[in-house]
Amino acid sequence: MAIRIFTTGGTFDKEYNELNGELYFKDTHMDELLTEGRSRLKVYIKTLMMIDSLEMTPDHRNLIAVECQQCEEERIVITHGTDTMAETARVLAKRVTGKTIVLTGAMIPIKFGSSDGLFNLGSALAFVQSLPPGVYVAMNGRYFNWDNVRKNRQTGIFEELPVSASAK
Amino acid sequence: MAIRIFTTGGTFDKEYNELNGELYFKDTHMDELLTEGRSRLKVYIKTLMMIDSLEMTPDHRNLIAVECQQCEEERIVITHGTDTMAETARVLAKRVTGKTIVLTGAMIPIKFGSSDGLFNLGSALAFVQSLPPGVYVAMNGRYFNWDNVRKNRQTGIFEELPVSASAK
Amino acid sequence: MAIRIFTTGGTFDKEYNELNGELYFKDTHMDELLTEGRSRLKVYIKTLMMIDSLEMTPDHRNLIAVECQQCEEERIVITHGTDTMAETARVLAKRVTGKTIVLTGAMIPIKFGSSDGLFNLGSALAFVQSLPPGVYVAMNGRYFNWDNVRKNRQTGIFEELPVSASAK
Amino acid sequence: MAIRIFTTGGTFDKEYNELNGELYFKDTHMDELLTEGRSRLKVYIKTLMMIDSLEMTPDHRNLIAVECQQCEEERIVITHGTDTMAETARVLAKRVTGKTIVLTGAMIPIKFGSSDGLFNLGSALAFVQSLPPGVYVAMNGRYFNWDNVRKNRQTGIFEELPVSASAK
Repeated sequence: MAIRIFTTGGTFDKEYNELNGELYFKDTHMDELLTEGRSRLKVYIKTLMMIDSLEMTPDHRNLIAVECQQCEEERIVITHGTDTMAETARVLAKRVTGKTIVLTGAMIPIKFGSSDGLFNLGSALAFVQSLPPGVYVAMNGRYFNWDNVRKNRQTGIFEELPVSASAK
Repeated sequence: MAIRIFTTGGTFDKEYNELNGELYFKDTHMDELLTEGRSRLKVYIKTLMMIDSLEMTPDHRNLIAVECQQCEEERIVITHGTDTMAETARVLAKRVTGKTIVLTGAMIPIKFGSSDGLFNLGSALAFVQSLPPGVYVAMNGRYFNWDNVRKNRQTGIFEELPVSASAK
Repeated sequence: MAIRIFTTGGTFDKEYNELNGELYFKDTHMDELLTEGRSRLKVYIKTLMMIDSLEMTPDHRNLIAVECQQCEEERIVITHGTDTMAETARVLAKRVTGKTIVLTGAMIPIKFGSSDGLFNLGSALAFVQSLPPGVYVAMNGRYFNWDNVRKNRQTGIFEELPVSASAK
Repeated sequence: MAIRIFTTGGTFDKEYNELNGELYFKDTHMDELLTEGRSRLKVYIKTLMMIDSLEMTPDHRNLIAVECQQCEEERIVITHGTDTMAETARVLAKRVTGKTIVLTGAMIPIKFGSSDGLFNLGSALAFVQSLPPGVYVAMNGRYFNWDNVRKNRQTGIFEELPVSASAK
C-alpha cells in the first residue's frame, strides 16, 4: 500500500536564517524525518508549495485538492501550517472522495530541538493506514474529523468544536 | 477514550552511564516524549519492568499479560525491546482478548540524537486508537499482526514472515 | 579564579513562541549550557537585559560597562547579539581597564538543534581564563581584539578589519 | 596560525550500533562539530586510532608522541578517552617540547543529545591558541597542567592531584 505525502510548508519546515535572524523555508525535512523514524513505508513525496498557512489562498487550496484527486494513491498525508489546517481540511472534504487524507503539522519547527513534528508524522502515517476514507486532522496524538476540529489560538491545542458550533 | 501505556524497558529507555561508559536503565522517558509530542491523549502510564528484552523470561511475559487483562482500558501501548517483541506479542495474543494492544520500541535510545522512538510512539498511539481488537507490532512506520512479524536480525527491520513460515 | 558571566540576550537566548510563531526571549539558557558542558568553573551569572543587539542603546552599553567596572571578578564573559557585539566591545575597551572581558554569542539559537552556542561558550570561557587583560570577541573558534573585529554581514563570519580600516 | 587535531577515539566518538545495541567506533565526528561551531580556524585533522582509552598501550602512546613531534604545527589538540587522558599527557610531556598540546574528550558521546563534547572542543581549541608551550588537559571548562591532573573515577570530574601527591 503506497502512501502519497504532500508537503506545503508551515511551521513544520521552517528554518532559521543565520544572516538575518528570520525564519524561512528552504526545503522540506520529510526525507530526514522518515529516515530518523526508520520508516519502511512505500511513500511518494511531492512538495506542492512552501508557505506559511496564513498566506494560503483559495488558489493554493485548489492546487492541493487537484493533486489529491489526481494522484494514484488512495492514502494521502499532507503537512500543513497549523493556523489554517482545519480550513484546508474542509475544502478537501468537499472536493475529494474515496480517499483517506490526513493533515498534520508541527507547533515547533523540526529543526528546533524539541519539535513535535516527528511524533505527529508517525501519528499521521499510522492514521492514514488505518482510518476509513475521509478527511482528518492529526495533531496532539489525536485525530479529528474535518468537520469537527479547530485550533485553539489561546492554547495552541487542537480540539473538537464547541457543541453549539458542531451542531450547526 | 483512555489509553494504557505499559513500559518494560528496551533500547527505547536506555541511558548512557557517564561513569562506566555502559548503557543502563534509570527511568522511562515516556512523560517527556508525550510532552514533546504535545500529546493531549488521556493516558495512564505504568512501568512494569526496566529490562533488555533479551532478558525477558516467561515470568515477565506473564506479568505483562496479567496487567493487560486486568487494566480497565481497552487500548494498550507497550514499549518493549525489539529483539523479543514478536515473542511477547504471541504470548499476549493467546492470553488477552477483546483489547487492542500495540507493541513498539526503538532501534536507538531516546536519549540519542537521532532516535526513532518519538516517531514510533506517535505511530503506536495512532494505531491503538484506530485498529480493531488484536495484538500488533508497530515499527518502521508500519503495523504487523502478532502472527506475521519478525525482526530481521541482519537488517534491524521488522518484516512479515516468509511465506513458508506464515503458512505453517 | 571566579568568572563573572553577564547575559544580555541576542540570538544565543532566543526561543520559539509556539502560539504566534515568533522568536522571543524568556530566560537565559546559561545554566543548562554549563550543565551540559559539565563545567566545574566557579561562575557568577547575572542577566543584565534580554534584548536583540540591534536594539541596544548607549544606555544599555553604559549599564554593561558599569557592571563590568563594579563587579569583583577580573574575568568576565558576556553573551551578546552578534550584530553589534563589536560596537559594545569598543565601548567596554574605553571604559573598563585591568580586566579580561570576552564577548561571545551564537549565530543560531541554543534551542535549535545545530547551534554554535555551546561551542562558543566553551571557547569564551577558555579565552577568559588564558588571555591577558583586554576586551575580546570570541566567535568562530577564534578571538579578536576589540579594535580589530567586525561581523561580515554577507557571510555571518567574524573577521579582522580590512587593512586600510585597521591602520586608522 | 594552523592547529593540528589528532583524534584517537574515546567516548567522544562512540556511536550506537542499532543491530547489536553496543557502542562502537566508526568515524570521528570532528568535522561535523567544527561545522556546528562555525569554526573558521585553520585546522588539519588526522585520525591516529579509534579506540577506548582503556585499551591504549605504550605503542599507541608512542605513535601519538611521534606524530606530535613530527607534525609542522606547534599547536595541537588531541581528542582522547577520559580514563587514561592524564596518562597520555604525562607521556607527551616527556617526549614533546616547544609545542602547546591540549588533550580533551567527552563524558558522553557526541551523538547523544546532551554531550559535553562540543563545549570541550570549543574550550580546547581556545586554550591551544592562548596557552604557552606545554601539555594540558582541558575538561569541565578548565585546563590542567599535565603533572597536576587526574580523573576522579567516583565523580567523573577532572581535578588537581591531592596536595600530598602533587608535592611528590
